Amino acid sequence: MSDYQNNTSNIKVAIITTSDRSSRGEREDLSGKVIEEISRSNSWEVLYYSVVPDDKDTIKTELVKTVDAIEADLVFTTGGTGVAPRDFTPEATLESIDREIPGMAEAMRAESLKKTPHAMLSRAICGMRGKALVINLPGSPRAVKECLEVIVPAIPHALELIRGGEADCGAASPPEEQ
Amino acid sequence: MSDYQNNTSNIKVAIITTSDRSSRGEREDLSGKVIEEISRSNSWEVLYYSVVPDDKDTIKTELVKTVDAIEADLVFTTGGTGVAPRDFTPEATLESIDREIPGMAEAMRAESLKKTPHAMLSRAICGMRGKALVINLPGSPRAVKECLEVIVPAIPHALELIRGGEADCGAASPPEEQ
Amino acid sequence: MSDYQNNTSNIKVAIITTSDRSSRGEREDLSGKVIEEISRSNSWEVLYYSVVPDDKDTIKTELVKTVDAIEADLVFTTGGTGVAPRDFTPEATLESIDREIPGMAEAMRAESLKKTPHAMLSRAICGMRGKALVINLPGSPRAVKECLEVIVPAIPHALELIRGGEADCGAASPPEEQ
Repeated sequence: MSDYQNNTSNIKVAIITTSDRSSRGEREDLSGKVIEEISRSNSWEVLYYSVVPDDKDTIKTELVKTVDAIEADLVFTTGGTGVAPRDFTPEATLESIDREIPGMAEAMRAESLKKTPHAMLSRAICGMRGKALVINLPGSPRAVKECLEVIVPAIPHALELIRGGEADCGAASPPEEQ
Repeated sequence: MSDYQNNTSNIKVAIITTSDRSSRGEREDLSGKVIEEISRSNSWEVLYYSVVPDDKDTIKTELVKTVDAIEADLVFTTGGTGVAPRDFTPEATLESIDREIPGMAEAMRAESLKKTPHAMLSRAICGMRGKALVINLPGSPRAVKECLEVIVPAIPHALELIRGGEADCGAASPPEEQ
Repeated sequence: MSDYQNNTSNIKVAIITTSDRSSRGEREDLSGKVIEEISRSNSWEVLYYSVVPDDKDTIKTELVKTVDAIEADLVFTTGGTGVAPRDFTPEATLESIDREIPGMAEAMRAESLKKTPHAMLSRAICGMRGKALVINLPGSPRAVKECLEVIVPAIPHALELIRGGEADCGAASPPEEQ
């Protein structure tokens, strides 16, 4: 068992809020703050936080920078996952990752769908860039909290596997049963 | 709040039934009629309806025409979503849309799966072409009804967002909470 | 109604275990044995079984061979579906199939998710190569059993449709209702 499972405090987090209005200072970024709080409550280190406009190339540049230069283990975006004309976060994410993890996005949508049918409109993408996890979260603070509750339980084990610790196991059972 | 939410009667619908047998007049198109009825019961205007063979290029031409020329807001297909040799509707749809909305297809399959394990064989695709929603429905009248019950509650808000009204919100919460 | 539904004993199965350790003889392949047992209990004929390393090209070669040369109707892989550096089974599968069936992988993940949040990390792909079904299963024997319980009920009908028998029906209702 690696350091990730014994001590999750060495998980380094980056948060990218994508919002035209927040980036112009017209709206407070409550969603980014929710991610920061939940990260800290898991003893993860938040080492980067930015608010950028809903521009695909800008989001892609941020994603690449947080993984390749800042070396975050876990990159969260919030916003831009819907069907509005300026919702480009999934496209920017798809162009930034090496491998998709569809089950993480499915699990978030399935859970959110219990609260509102609008959850089915989230086009959120989750995946890996190198040894980092990249996760699209929706834009509203409440939806961010709901989605994090779904995926946080799988994150330490995911990072453990991505780093190559005890990799030779199936994905659908707890480690102790494999 | 836009006209879509106050008055959904300005949603214009196109229905494309894909079925070799129905297009030859060998089978009545009950599924297309179910879509028409449910659309009317939502006060949506049905302005186009066609029955075409299970031919990929024909289906693609129909999809493009209903959005670009007929200017439907909402295009439903029925049929051709399964695993049979002539089931090409998902492929034709993927080539016609700009952005996929995987959660709509996931939600339909998850609900249909409660009725029958065969629901997992539906390869239905949902997405956007320009400002129109394009939605693949299965072939049987009963499955069409079940699937529409799942997605209709999200459609007015989806079209609202696609048109750019109050776009700056998350996808997984009702508008009043964002 | 075809032979598949009256008599499933003419379904020919191939099993490919992908595991660096098992291929070196360092670990017994319990998961492959679970697939073999469940196949036999369904009166399916297991005509091929191999254990290969977690190498993308090797897995792809096996998938192509089992369908094109061995003419299996149903190819199961076990292992390599997660997020570890050597988990390439989904990538090899995507390069081997003609059409994806996302609902089968979604259904397996949704069911496994009831047992463990780690299920969301499975990147399993299901699809068709020609007239064969190709299905990625996870690596652990218990997860393999759980996943097979989800998809086995849909397999005879899927093969029936793929072969072109009574193809003109929707995918989300039992055959008798279409």
